[in-house]
Amino acid sequence: MRFFSDNAASAHPAVLEAIAAANHVDTAYDGDALSAQLNAAFSDVFETSVQAHWISTGTAANSLALAALCPPYGSVLCHKDAHIQNDECGAPEFYTHGAKLALIEGDGAKVTAAALEAKLAATPAGVHWAQPHALSITQATEYGRVYTADEVSALSAICRAKGLGLHMDGARFANAVAHLGCAPADVTWRAGVDILSFGFVKNGGLSSEALIFFKPELAKGFVERRKRAGHLLSKGRYQAAQLLALLDQDRWLTNARAANLGAQRLGAALRGRLIHRVEANEVFAAVSADEAAVLRGQGFDFYDWAEGEVRFVVSWDQPEAEIIAFAAALAAL
Amino acid sequence: MRFFSDNAASAHPAVLEAIAAANHVDTAYDGDALSAQLNAAFSDVFETSVQAHWISTGTAANSLALAALCPPYGSVLCHKDAHIQNDECGAPEFYTHGAKLALIEGDGAKVTAAALEAKLAATPAGVHWAQPHALSITQATEYGRVYTADEVSALSAICRAKGLGLHMDGARFANAVAHLGCAPADVTWRAGVDILSFGFVKNGGLSSEALIFFKPELAKGFVERRKRAGHLLSKGRYQAAQLLALLDQDRWLTNARAANLGAQRLGAALRGRLIHRVEANEVFAAVSADEAAVLRGQGFDFYDWAEGEVRFVVSWDQPEAEIIAFAAALAAL
Amino acid sequence: MRFFSDNAASAHPAVLEAIAAANHVDTAYDGDALSAQLNAAFSDVFETSVQAHWISTGTAANSLALAALCPPYGSVLCHKDAHIQNDECGAPEFYTHGAKLALIEGDGAKVTAAALEAKLAATPAGVHWAQPHALSITQATEYGRVYTADEVSALSAICRAKGLGLHMDGARFANAVAHLGCAPADVTWRAGVDILSFGFVKNGGLSSEALIFFKPELAKGFVERRKRAGHLLSKGRYQAAQLLALLDQDRWLTNARAANLGAQRLGAALRGRLIHRVEANEVFAAVSADEAAVLRGQGFDFYDWAEGEVRFVVSWDQPEAEIIAFAAALAAL
Amino acid sequence: MRFFSDNAASAHPAVLEAIAAANHVDTAYDGDALSAQLNAAFSDVFETSVQAHWISTGTAANSLALAALCPPYGSVLCHKDAHIQNDECGAPEFYTHGAKLALIEGDGAKVTAAALEAKLAATPAGVHWAQPHALSITQATEYGRVYTADEVSALSAICRAKGLGLHMDGARFANAVAHLGCAPADVTWRAGVDILSFGFVKNGGLSSEALIFFKPELAKGFVERRKRAGHLLSKGRYQAAQLLALLDQDRWLTNARAANLGAQRLGAALRGRLIHRVEANEVFAAVSADEAAVLRGQGFDFYDWAEGEVRFVVSWDQPEAEIIAFAAALAAL
Repeated sequence: MRFFSDNAASAHPAVLEAIAAANHVDTAYDGDALSAQLNAAFSDVFETSVQAHWISTGTAANSLALAALCPPYGSVLCHKDAHIQNDECGAPEFYTHGAKLALIEGDGAKVTAAALEAKLAATPAGVHWAQPHALSITQATEYGRVYTADEVSALSAICRAKGLGLHMDGARFANAVAHLGCAPADVTWRAGVDILSFGFVKNGGLSSEALIFFKPELAKGFVERRKRAGHLLSKGRYQAAQLLALLDQDRWLTNARAANLGAQRLGAALRGRLIHRVEANEVFAAVSADEAAVLRGQGFDFYDWAEGEVRFVVSWDQPEAEIIAFAAALAAL
Repeated sequence: MRFFSDNAASAHPAVLEAIAAANHVDTAYDGDALSAQLNAAFSDVFETSVQAHWISTGTAANSLALAALCPPYGSVLCHKDAHIQNDECGAPEFYTHGAKLALIEGDGAKVTAAALEAKLAATPAGVHWAQPHALSITQATEYGRVYTADEVSALSAICRAKGLGLHMDGARFANAVAHLGCAPADVTWRAGVDILSFGFVKNGGLSSEALIFFKPELAKGFVERRKRAGHLLSKGRYQAAQLLALLDQDRWLTNARAANLGAQRLGAALRGRLIHRVEANEVFAAVSADEAAVLRGQGFDFYDWAEGEVRFVVSWDQPEAEIIAFAAALAAL
Repeated sequence: MRFFSDNAASAHPAVLEAIAAANHVDTAYDGDALSAQLNAAFSDVFETSVQAHWISTGTAANSLALAALCPPYGSVLCHKDAHIQNDECGAPEFYTHGAKLALIEGDGAKVTAAALEAKLAATPAGVHWAQPHALSITQATEYGRVYTADEVSALSAICRAKGLGLHMDGARFANAVAHLGCAPADVTWRAGVDILSFGFVKNGGLSSEALIFFKPELAKGFVERRKRAGHLLSKGRYQAAQLLALLDQDRWLTNARAANLGAQRLGAALRGRLIHRVEANEVFAAVSADEAAVLRGQGFDFYDWAEGEVRFVVSWDQPEAEIIAFAAALAAL
Repeated sequence: MRFFSDNAASAHPAVLEAIAAANHVDTAYDGDALSAQLNAAFSDVFETSVQAHWISTGTAANSLALAALCPPYGSVLCHKDAHIQNDECGAPEFYTHGAKLALIEGDGAKVTAAALEAKLAATPAGVHWAQPHALSITQATEYGRVYTADEVSALSAICRAKGLGLHMDGARFANAVAHLGCAPADVTWRAGVDILSFGFVKNGGLSSEALIFFKPELAKGFVERRKRAGHLLSKGRYQAAQLLALLDQDRWLTNARAANLGAQRLGAALRGRLIHRVEANEVFAAVSADEAAVLRGQGFDFYDWAEGEVRFVVSWDQPEAEIIAFAAALAAL
């Protein structure tokens, strides 16, 4: 029973069906009929006109967003535990051509307005220190925490005042929206987000994420950068099909709610052991090495996050029986 | 009836079936059971031990190969009509961090040994001129021409003598092998090729190409470069599944033979108009603008290559009826 | 007697004096009193308000100019014999982060308006082919030819129409202006040039060139790029001092005229052998290997440009006696 | 009276004399007679065969060293207060093509063996996290602290065991050696340093630093990288002349000793206020804003390092009277 991560879960049946339905010749690259629907489909979701593009991975989505916001000689502010800092083998540096990531600390991998202001105040002006051009936040964070619309707005107000762009890494954006119960617009462009990496792969997709530009001028150069990164697939219709299938009938939200609910169940079983509040589909708990061994002996797989600390992630398709079994096992520790 | 390109053809049913069969949780990235089979499967095909990796596009495959062969301050020799020069929006420069492409002329987009030697002789030594580190050739070429094993060997002998690596862009490698009727090994490592971009997408794949390292030491850094380019998909099993499905039962060869045969039929109908010998699945013909309009009026779609010159590409799944109809229309011009 | 190149000539005594005069503590980097005079001094020369910066080499000047004009995914048009293509080991690609150089042919290493238009017409639009963002021309060219103001204007009109920036590599700008006898403004901003690499090292400088921005908005990011390239010397006053010394009393023009005059003398002695018209301080002549050996035997050093073709360059400080002797030797061939 | 930094001090008279003495034509770039002496001259200093190259700035020297040690997808470990992290506008990222700097904490900007081991232990293996390829330490550190030979050896032993290269940023290497009283070899290659940025500009030079390769194989690609960065000056003899002049008669050591001695005097006057032990030529002291204003009112210029903390730097040519006056003023606070 795999609670190791949601990144290897199965694809939603509707995704496979959409791929099969797209299996006929159409114009190559993103000139096909399905890719042509993306702007409208995502504009509906966000209640405003957006530019939406498919891209194979969240790493590429994030990096292309940062390349749009930050010149090679600038810096991007982010949390020290951000995925872009720790888990992408320098992809942001590759795509931005060497921009620096300037790190901010904060509980639950969240950047607070106060921490952002302090970081900016501590950054000398001038040509010697790479000047900040953007802030990137993760929604939900690497610790499964969720920014409220007000929190995002507070950050974007600072960004606006300082001329910084605001990127949201939404690898688990669906889980965040499901948790907040708000409109997707509320926690993105209405709160000042400029570009969103909207994750689908962890949420039932197969190989397609979306990159959403809320300001068309920021998309300048995107299609060229995607092409030269080798991310312009020639049969783009299969990429678009995945996104449309998950938007259809709000499957992305349904899937996220299921995962979040499972996490809540595990969290409830763990009460005193929780290291971070459970908001999305990730659970961080104090579990000793001996206890971890016991759980593994019972067939549960998960991530050893740190000394005495483990991470459980509930996937969109996690069987309820597995969740119940795991919750019971956790409660019995 | 689309003879515009083979890059948007449908995916082979076995590919879709393989994807569906892989739709269960497995280890993420390339840690899954299917990805683990690639080395063995391609080693079988090539009759030697190779390192084989999936990658989403030919552009990324080519660029990662060149990054393995050429430092940022070097140059890669290639034909002036090479895909890496003209059709990848600077992807080789992006991945190699600015290496130069040094261009060679030659009939049919083929690099001859004589032309390679002349180019090398004309390249001053020293620090001012970017020194060549690799040769990249396309098999089949951008004009549908095929290098024989002897021709590749003649090039690799020069490469060896000059310390250059040899990359083969095999976006249509299957068509070339089908034309040659040789073992895949004969025209690759036995002829001195170091790295092969082995194309599957044009040949019935959906979103997966293979990068084949014939020398393990050249693969150093590949997995890191793939990751930081955002090309390490988290559900890699679907990528591996596509490749395995097309290798199975030699579908890649069957598909290529079908496409080549169609091209031969079109070529036979065009005789005196042919601009390049038809060897793979591409046909270049002298067709006036008026004639092109006539053909389009009959429902045929194709590429205006140059003034008075058109390109037809036959896809692996092109219905025989379409080929017959098109051949008839061409013969009737 | 060295006619090999002007790139290793001595520094003008006034340059050494200026360096010595600057040998007292001042603010570091470009915060010193001399660097602060550059904008005004060059604005005087160009009869308009310019931004002027010192930079150690022409290669860095050119590359920083191109980085200001072309994004990583674009291309820069230039002559196939341009210094930026052949003699800088990929510096433009390094500084632009991989932009491509798209090559144009033309007599005397000059780009004509017709050739520029033909190149642009032959460049497909779209995302696959790196789109042109700038034109770079060399004044005087690599063959010692000079663009007239009208020729530059004709090029800039095309650039304007197509949205391209216009860079002038003026490693021998002084020689070109001396030849034209025009105002520096006439052949630069009045003719539509956006950024000028204004060479001083070949003209009596020691280690300082100037980069001139005729449009302040193009200078955005320059100081950051110069710094991160390691070109912001901490004792910038010595760099500024060199430029001011050569501007003072129009020494740059006096030096260039002396070099040009010497080249004219050599050219006159070579008449029928001249391969390019002598306009600046370079002379290209048909000289056989045997003849070259004779000249070398007489103590003359020069560059074997190609089979049966040699290059002579006259330096600003070339002793008249050397020129007379060489002219005599050439006439006697 | 400028105690702001040593980076804008005057050049040593012998440096200017050497430049003047080099003011005659010689082979361009680094083909001149003076550049040819560098390997021997520095091999003498280091009692072993080294490769030595001139380079205009410490930023370029450091970045070229790191590019030699770390691939684009790797990381370089350094102290969080290192110059390469904070003061070079991303130059290391530019030259390495995006390698990451991984930061280590430690007193006095020194990296201890324990801290290095802890950092390495905390760095996950695998493809997601940029893997360390080098350690860069600053000698003397950004806080004027000096590594002993034993301390360097302890670090290099770890580097060796982990396959990391070891770079020493010696912008104030002379001051460190003067403090240690050891042979330059003892604290560099004998202690396991692979590449040294040997600073001269802060120590009486004008525009020339040295990059010292203790292992010739690490110099592969250096001359190409220097050229494409625009750092191959055409009149390299003036660069070499500076270095030779400062090596001659051990001027570099004499200069460093003078600066260190001045710093000791200031340190003695500050006793209880010292924040870091005074070892090289920098002094960090607790001085309130009011006190700083008093000092400035007396004509002393210095750097406000942080709230309530100032930095004084003594230059090689600081007049003794200035030091005496400043020491008196400090003692009188």
